[in-house]
Amino acid sequence: MSLIKVDEAREIILSRIQFMGAEKIPLTETLGRVLCEDIIARRNNPPMDNSAMDGYALIAEDVKTASPENPVILQVVGEVAAGYTATGEPLKSGQALRIMTGAPIPPGANAVIMQEDTERDGDRLLVKDMAEVDENIREAGEDVKVGELVVPKGTVIRPAHIGMMATVGRSQIFVGRRPTVAVLSTGDEILDLDDQPEGPCIYNSNGYMLSAQIRSAGGIPHYLGIARDTEEDLMEKFRWALQCDLIVSSGGVSVGDYDLVKASLKKIGQEMLFWKVAMKPGKPLAFGQIGDTPIFGLPGNPVSSFVSFEQFVRPSIRKMTGRDDLLSTCVQAKLTHSVSKKAGRQHFLSARTVWEKDGYIVTPEGAQGSGILKSAAQANSLMIFPLEATDLAEGEQVTVQLLE
Amino acid sequence: MSLIKVDEAREIILSRIQFMGAEKIPLTETLGRVLCEDIIARRNNPPMDNSAMDGYALIAEDVKTASPENPVILQVVGEVAAGYTATGEPLKSGQALRIMTGAPIPPGANAVIMQEDTERDGDRLLVKDMAEVDENIREAGEDVKVGELVVPKGTVIRPAHIGMMATVGRSQIFVGRRPTVAVLSTGDEILDLDDQPEGPCIYNSNGYMLSAQIRSAGGIPHYLGIARDTEEDLMEKFRWALQCDLIVSSGGVSVGDYDLVKASLKKIGQEMLFWKVAMKPGKPLAFGQIGDTPIFGLPGNPVSSFVSFEQFVRPSIRKMTGRDDLLSTCVQAKLTHSVSKKAGRQHFLSARTVWEKDGYIVTPEGAQGSGILKSAAQANSLMIFPLEATDLAEGEQVTVQLLE
Repeated sequence: MSLIKVDEAREIILSRIQFMGAEKIPLTETLGRVLCEDIIARRNNPPMDNSAMDGYALIAEDVKTASPENPVILQVVGEVAAGYTATGEPLKSGQALRIMTGAPIPPGANAVIMQEDTERDGDRLLVKDMAEVDENIREAGEDVKVGELVVPKGTVIRPAHIGMMATVGRSQIFVGRRPTVAVLSTGDEILDLDDQPEGPCIYNSNGYMLSAQIRSAGGIPHYLGIARDTEEDLMEKFRWALQCDLIVSSGGVSVGDYDLVKASLKKIGQEMLFWKVAMKPGKPLAFGQIGDTPIFGLPGNPVSSFVSFEQFVRPSIRKMTGRDDLLSTCVQAKLTHSVSKKAGRQHFLSARTVWEKDGYIVTPEGAQGSGILKSAAQANSLMIFPLEATDLAEGEQVTVQLLE
Repeated sequence: MSLIKVDEAREIILSRIQFMGAEKIPLTETLGRVLCEDIIARRNNPPMDNSAMDGYALIAEDVKTASPENPVILQVVGEVAAGYTATGEPLKSGQALRIMTGAPIPPGANAVIMQEDTERDGDRLLVKDMAEVDENIREAGEDVKVGELVVPKGTVIRPAHIGMMATVGRSQIFVGRRPTVAVLSTGDEILDLDDQPEGPCIYNSNGYMLSAQIRSAGGIPHYLGIARDTEEDLMEKFRWALQCDLIVSSGGVSVGDYDLVKASLKKIGQEMLFWKVAMKPGKPLAFGQIGDTPIFGLPGNPVSSFVSFEQFVRPSIRKMTGRDDLLSTCVQAKLTHSVSKKAGRQHFLSARTVWEKDGYIVTPEGAQGSGILKSAAQANSLMIFPLEATDLAEGEQVTVQLLE
């Protein structure tokens, strides 16, 4: 079995992954979801011309000669606050209307004079400055015009988008469905958190970690616990898993493994691919479909499982939810110390990337063994050490994948 | 009333904000929460010396002369798989035991030879290579030693931390409590999403946007709807709000505002501070306490409300949940075109920051008016235009606050 490159494996995988379709959910639940419709304004915002100031609505021509020395005197005929409409006749020459910020401009008026430029005595108003036509008037549709696209399809929804969708009066929004994802760990040496620790067993970290990765990628994890190394248990758990939209198992895919996962996968999978991917950690990888359900067989070593998820499963879940940006954000960073490896596999080093003054610097974390989750837990990024590279020098610019 | 700087206002606010204390929750619910205890390994991982390979456990001295030409013959006396312990007598000279990856090293053995370096016929094993003492043996505690700190207090929990906590057998974890946060919008011109649009009203965007901001900051929003501009309605809503750990209202804090929010806040707040903050958007800001409950009065304009939340409320919620990193991540970015302003206020421009080849570049989004949420919705960052600066040239490095 020859080695397949990371990008090639991902391309094959993504070609088999389908968008889940959309569902309509309350606006208040859309944070972080993927918008699946164009949000179009159904009316102008603001809906009508309104005042940008607390002051007086008037007719600009009436006050064109006004100055502090020669104020113009107008008669105040009413008042209008935000949220209300002026009552009575349209404004006539010589009249003014008290107006609050946001209140609609009354018919007849064509300017607003700031309160500070006036003096008032009963219904007598001294206007001490001129006003241009349209002065202090915010036009209808100044923020958003009817028919305007305000949030485009494909947007990953942040708080300001929610504000924008509320502005245009939308309360139920089409977003991409979140896939349900079955998580299955395998192996007789694996202990669950509610088991009594005894003998040479180790606790199942992958099941919990993968569930969290699935959640952060936009999926809904369903942890099916640990399948023992018997065909009965494996087949039963895989049958449960088939109730989900996607299956992620860990363990039992290494070449030469004695356990039954591979055999079971071959038995139930219509078309399973078993790869040696040219990456480290995470060489063995299985991918295929059971019926229409895509299934990933990730390696059992925790760091291999973690890194493989980030390269293959996260982009798949993103695609299922309707995202266009399938890959995690990558940046360039300056390497703090030299690193070496053999050519032939792309390495992903658990690394700490921090912003310092004018750029990112990256430090690979201590031991990088595939069993040692400690380094991955201290990392906020994966440093990419390219396939054929063997030495990267201190100070070199390298590519870093930022972890969510 | 003189202007107060953003940093000064934030410092005063944060000095009044208290950590909420911790609660113990299931490991599976801890993603994104703040760890409030040091996680210490309670046993070694791996728990005992085990095999790094599929192969045979043996005594290194037995095979010190072994080579492909002169293989050493051993007798296979048993087999041990991962998760099980070898039964029977300790290994004696001349004996070997079939061993799988992860299985504990049987008593008496001190090395593992790879399967590829052997040939087997019944219980006869031809060993075709020598083995060093400890070869292919992973020592007990190689990953994690008992007593070791594996995840420190204060960590914002990511998937790999969840894996690490599972590794050490922890299922219930102390994390910082999430504050409940009351969200209140005010103003007679504000329409809620389930109201019939009529007249000069505008939809309430702030209530929904602030709720989403609160959630993304780690709080639990409780949207109390819109309070009308009457003392009765305001006082009733503020009484409801007092059932929460924090109150965020928007609207009614501008100097010279006619509405009753300020008066009501003064009436119920023990010690309310009304500031003009030297920032744009977002000049007016109220902060104080009702009993022990901190309360923010944010401006009513959507962008002012949005930006003020990011500068003052998000750091406060982070502190309440136990985070140490109170401020949002800032990076330096190259400005794509020149911008100007008057000195005297720190501006926050809605901006799009993207990574290009070897650094970030930042483009302020179109119109920056405080009523126009469109720019904020298109932005992924706020560009900081310093207090006293008036001109920033194209190509200049500027500070950018990345939005969550």
